[in-house]
Amino acid sequence: MKAMGPIPAGYVGRDGELVIAGQPVSHWIAKAGETPLFVYDSARLTGRVAQLRAAMPQRLSIHYAIKANPFAPVLRHMAGLVDGFDIASGGELAMAQEAGFPADRISFAGPGKDNRELEAAIAAGVTINLESEGEMRRALATGERLGVAPRLAIRVNPDFDLKGSGMKMGGGAKPFGIDAARVPALAREIADSGAQWRGFHIFAGSQALSADAVIETQAQTLALAGRLAEETGIALPHCNLGGGFGIPYFPGDEPLNIAAVGAALGEAFDALPDGLEETHFAIELGRWLVGEAGVYLTRVIDVKDSHGEIFVVVDGGLHHQLAASGNFGTVVRRNYPVAVANRFGDVDAGFAQSVVGRLCTPIDRLAEKVALPPISEGDLIAVFCAGAYGASASPAMFLGHGAAAELLA
Amino acid sequence: MKAMGPIPAGYVGRDGELVIAGQPVSHWIAKAGETPLFVYDSARLTGRVAQLRAAMPQRLSIHYAIKANPFAPVLRHMAGLVDGFDIASGGELAMAQEAGFPADRISFAGPGKDNRELEAAIAAGVTINLESEGEMRRALATGERLGVAPRLAIRVNPDFDLKGSGMKMGGGAKPFGIDAARVPALAREIADSGAQWRGFHIFAGSQALSADAVIETQAQTLALAGRLAEETGIALPHCNLGGGFGIPYFPGDEPLNIAAVGAALGEAFDALPDGLEETHFAIELGRWLVGEAGVYLTRVIDVKDSHGEIFVVVDGGLHHQLAASGNFGTVVRRNYPVAVANRFGDVDAGFAQSVVGRLCTPIDRLAEKVALPPISEGDLIAVFCAGAYGASASPAMFLGHGAAAELLA
Repeated sequence: MKAMGPIPAGYVGRDGELVIAGQPVSHWIAKAGETPLFVYDSARLTGRVAQLRAAMPQRLSIHYAIKANPFAPVLRHMAGLVDGFDIASGGELAMAQEAGFPADRISFAGPGKDNRELEAAIAAGVTINLESEGEMRRALATGERLGVAPRLAIRVNPDFDLKGSGMKMGGGAKPFGIDAARVPALAREIADSGAQWRGFHIFAGSQALSADAVIETQAQTLALAGRLAEETGIALPHCNLGGGFGIPYFPGDEPLNIAAVGAALGEAFDALPDGLEETHFAIELGRWLVGEAGVYLTRVIDVKDSHGEIFVVVDGGLHHQLAASGNFGTVVRRNYPVAVANRFGDVDAGFAQSVVGRLCTPIDRLAEKVALPPISEGDLIAVFCAGAYGASASPAMFLGHGAAAELLA
Repeated sequence: MKAMGPIPAGYVGRDGELVIAGQPVSHWIAKAGETPLFVYDSARLTGRVAQLRAAMPQRLSIHYAIKANPFAPVLRHMAGLVDGFDIASGGELAMAQEAGFPADRISFAGPGKDNRELEAAIAAGVTINLESEGEMRRALATGERLGVAPRLAIRVNPDFDLKGSGMKMGGGAKPFGIDAARVPALAREIADSGAQWRGFHIFAGSQALSADAVIETQAQTLALAGRLAEETGIALPHCNLGGGFGIPYFPGDEPLNIAAVGAALGEAFDALPDGLEETHFAIELGRWLVGEAGVYLTRVIDVKDSHGEIFVVVDGGLHHQLAASGNFGTVVRRNYPVAVANRFGDVDAGFAQSVVGRLCTPIDRLAEKVALPPISEGDLIAVFCAGAYGASASPAMFLGHGAAAELLA
């Protein structure tokens, strides 16, 4: 038997069925007409943003990093809740614009922006987080060609990283951002060029669950921003503090204490370094805002016993949930939280079963030897924490099964 | 500096440019009109099948496992070369049929076939490789409902695995196939039911480079097939010996000696167990047939120095080449063979550079600290061994950049 991660708080059963957004899963499946299905709970999205606003200093703007979940109805919903969208491609720019989000509240980060993307973003008035000196020159040239003063910020490669984070984005040699030492000279050049100088974007890591680590990183980020602003000699208009707030996925994971993070950030704002007194601050979050709001529902096609191990074969798999299969940036495979959605709460009678996807590859495992009640063909498996980096971050075309349905509840 | 895998034999430069299918890469990019681009060389596909036929006993049929590369022009080309197609989904059935491949030479394996898929495949006359007793009952019921005698084989979960294989598909508890001990009774039941009894499918692993390991596995497979046929009491009509032929991807990898495999299989065919004298044998290969015929071409957007490490940022990434990034079923990241396609052969002057994709995630690395000549914006990077499990096995929608172009040369 292997452990699984904790089911996010608030998911309950009614008459044995998992309830999402006030309705049993059978309701959502009937509405979508098929499985596999991602259901995203709009009330959870709203609640999550409200919870964050309550915990963070009022001065802090909240951005949504749409790469976490770019499903159009989710974007339209988030558009009414957050202060900014962060995008990572020209494709995401188009999605943000289709969601009706104002371009002057969009910022664009990503190490490989091509000239077409820069042109579209600058023409629209999006802030570009510059990732290199070469990109700065291309952005300035694009602005000149378009007759537009581009809105330019510098993404700083910090000299520290977010401790305990799932993915380090700073500290040492990195493909992201401009090394801190080079920043002041380039910032002055931007300001002198007639472009709109928008400040710094400092992103040190992601998926952290330790408040202490996030607090330390934010303190380092503010200190670095202050030092760079001083060396630049221009008061800093804007500073994106990055994100990094994680959610529990695996056994033993505990939710990040955002109250502690918010309190510390409030204190830090009360004692800002010189040159940051008037700075506008933002954080950008993806996973923390949408991850727990999503559930992936997949129907059992077959249950088989092979040499005493029970395999539950479902109509989904890693082509929709690559991360849950343990094949996306993780070294050791661990179990996401899963449940039998039409027998929810019936855990005591559980015995070890493995939930495998329908793909003809041994890496397609959604849960390995987890305790689940007896399962039959036609039952429904729920994989939790499916709201972020699920549908859009998985190889939907692999083996020809196609994409899953998605639905905002 | 880190090593990279060997560039497949036969790729040469002309005036410094990598040549694919007789033309420099610039020709193919002009034809496609864009990068990133997968180019598949049809002559290499033809040559590979011919090479295999020359090495293998004439009695052995050659099947193409289309999951390796389902690009429609590749399927149409392969349709004229091989004796069978192996499919893994209803989607792949539609692709095989669109390629004009006769359904009676198609077989369908995969642990999660739903009733819609079974119905389409049985109606078309495809052979179903049954993965469980439950699936057998559903297939028989489907045949009855349709008034068709379904063509049914049993996928056997063997008691051995392919040693040194990249992915083990047999040996112990597995989601694939039916445990060997259960097979004779079920085979008899199928034969007695009026269905067309098509024999066994025995697949023990994939991506093996050791001829000795493949030879041993094929010998074990024939012995198992003989034993099961004897226990079943029916001469075996057909036996799919699986595949498992690997290609070199990583430093130190050597090509599989298929001449040795073919010679050993010829000897084995001359001394078949009782009950297999009239059996029709097949192998199914995917990666070995198409992997080296494909090259992924991606253009350099930026070259940057961060703390002394050179990062070459390209307009592609793991959203097209997940396996090359080391995030698809591999534990330790190693370098695929790569080259500067517009300065091909210019390796002596190389120094350590890392090729990273354009995605805003640290796991998007196509090559880490490999020796490459000086690189500038606009140069072209070639990633070799991109013909199998590339475009269709990668999360193309991740971060909104979209799919790569594909072209059969």
